[in-house]
Amino acid sequence: MRRVILALVLGCAFSPVPAASVEPIVLRGMGSFHIGGRVVEVSGKPVREIVRQPGGPLTKLDPNGQYMVEQMYVQYFLPQRRTGRLPLLMWHGGGLTGVTYETTPDGREGWLNLFIRKGWDTYVSDAVERGRAGFAPPDVWPSEPTFLTFQDPFERFRIGDGPGSWNRDAGMHKVLPGSAFPVEAYDNYMKQQVPRWLSTDDAIVAAYLALVDKVCPCVLLAHSQGGAFSFKVAEQRPDKIKALVAVESATAGNLGKAAALKDIPIMMMFGDYVAEHPRWRTFKKIDLEYADAVRAAGGSVDVINLPEIGIKGNSHMLMMDKNNAEIADVIHKRLAGKNLVE
Amino acid sequence: MRRVILALVLGCAFSPVPAASVEPIVLRGMGSFHIGGRVVEVSGKPVREIVRQPGGPLTKLDPNGQYMVEQMYVQYFLPQRRTGRLPLLMWHGGGLTGVTYETTPDGREGWLNLFIRKGWDTYVSDAVERGRAGFAPPDVWPSEPTFLTFQDPFERFRIGDGPGSWNRDAGMHKVLPGSAFPVEAYDNYMKQQVPRWLSTDDAIVAAYLALVDKVCPCVLLAHSQGGAFSFKVAEQRPDKIKALVAVESATAGNLGKAAALKDIPIMMMFGDYVAEHPRWRTFKKIDLEYADAVRAAGGSVDVINLPEIGIKGNSHMLMMDKNNAEIADVIHKRLAGKNLVE
Repeated sequence: MRRVILALVLGCAFSPVPAASVEPIVLRGMGSFHIGGRVVEVSGKPVREIVRQPGGPLTKLDPNGQYMVEQMYVQYFLPQRRTGRLPLLMWHGGGLTGVTYETTPDGREGWLNLFIRKGWDTYVSDAVERGRAGFAPPDVWPSEPTFLTFQDPFERFRIGDGPGSWNRDAGMHKVLPGSAFPVEAYDNYMKQQVPRWLSTDDAIVAAYLALVDKVCPCVLLAHSQGGAFSFKVAEQRPDKIKALVAVESATAGNLGKAAALKDIPIMMMFGDYVAEHPRWRTFKKIDLEYADAVRAAGGSVDVINLPEIGIKGNSHMLMMDKNNAEIADVIHKRLAGKNLVE
Repeated sequence: MRRVILALVLGCAFSPVPAASVEPIVLRGMGSFHIGGRVVEVSGKPVREIVRQPGGPLTKLDPNGQYMVEQMYVQYFLPQRRTGRLPLLMWHGGGLTGVTYETTPDGREGWLNLFIRKGWDTYVSDAVERGRAGFAPPDVWPSEPTFLTFQDPFERFRIGDGPGSWNRDAGMHKVLPGSAFPVEAYDNYMKQQVPRWLSTDDAIVAAYLALVDKVCPCVLLAHSQGGAFSFKVAEQRPDKIKALVAVESATAGNLGKAAALKDIPIMMMFGDYVAEHPRWRTFKKIDLEYADAVRAAGGSVDVINLPEIGIKGNSHMLMMDKNNAEIADVIHKRLAGKNLVE
């Protein structure tokens, strides 16, 4: 327990108020909406009586009936000085929500703020069954939610040095040498984790398609599990996706459908320590095979290995690492190079 | 099913892009954080092997270990032209998240935007176990999540005319006469609903206390179930809460501790049709008894019955109703009257 308490103590020091010297963010609009979803019928379950608030009246709880399920949540910010030619959609990874992009665990500005400041109309979403999207009643989906332990992402997301690194050296954490992750705020990162289901991929893709149909043509920026969804969506809406930035995608799309992406400029980005860790080496191999299939159809895929361009120490959570602004610059400049910035 | 489809068709027409004539929102900062929470230990459960992404490698899922639970999520917006003397915290009701305040179901600006525009540093949160706060693994809390049927809030939140109003007249919905709720977008409202637990009140209050300790002194604006939490938090941090706006609070705080609120200006606000609906008449009675207890200790409670000041047709979801801007003006002016606006 001592090591947990250490992390908690280290992680509590940040202020929500940014430095006074930062330029204001000027928005011509902001808001949110839900999209997608369907109404399902639940039947044959017993009626119960419950008190909804302590002190409140006894009320019937009838679990039977129609439920709204499989919608997703989207929050958008529209800068007054717009330079991105198209909306930029940011899709999170597994066990996470749009919070991924909002703020770093140590309280710096996330990619949401940074890309708004660069002039992009930015849409950050919570996929089906994650965060503000809500989740369905029991038995609508064929599996239970899964949860990550406190140490799991430390060992698996290339913050620590692989399996066992959380407990190594009698309770000390073995952080990867030169890690750019704000490990002193690791507990704040873990507070962002939410449960996820392993049987909802089709529902997630359906809601993303509804989102794309609503706000695109656009640029997709997707991370980890979201990368796989972005490829699958692009396969079905190749005319709507004008660029796709896949940040450590896990995994890729359907190899047999990769040719659909031949007219979409694709960027695949990878952080540090990938070759040394089997899980990430495997995902990268799958991504690069998909890239080859896109290229074989005449498409274009830029693969950016951050250490090769001098950006080092990146964990799987690139957008939270201490050099997150530098990486945002790389992405923005590459999109400008594709004539997507005014 | 016909009536559901009707609602879905009616509810799909809105644009996220606001009218060009609206003034820009200028922020000196925005971001988010999680706060509160604790690490729990789960033990004695079997290890399983699962594929986390289709096509990905087989990985072990060990449900035992330490988990971060009972944190809450907070997003903040700090206007450049600040006029509110203190931060304004917006707390949502049961089965809902901070989305309550962001946008109306029919796509107008919510109280978040409206109060930012009025110059308030505004903090919108998702309470423990709601939305982006995440929820705990099985057995950490002593109950299962509960879910609302599609028609439940229609009948219960004074949109329709009470029990049975969803199905009345062979599938037509019996909306209350003069209702200000954007009933044509009812399905979008239902997409905002999330599951909730009935056994987490103490954890929710603990996280709210942590939030108050971080960002207050402040003004609390709380709705429905959130109103009850706001009173309980104010009882424990009376020096930190400089005004409390309880919008249809369900229920109130602890009568025996109400005296603690004697120096806090309190506003209790109620919409239309309250006297006619037993559930809301009951909650209001509980609120007014709490108000009496505060007054008996020398405190001040303004009770605003909106129909009495000419604002009519309001459902339980006042902040989404078509006159939501008018109601925001009432709150802002009352706070100005308490010397809380520069």
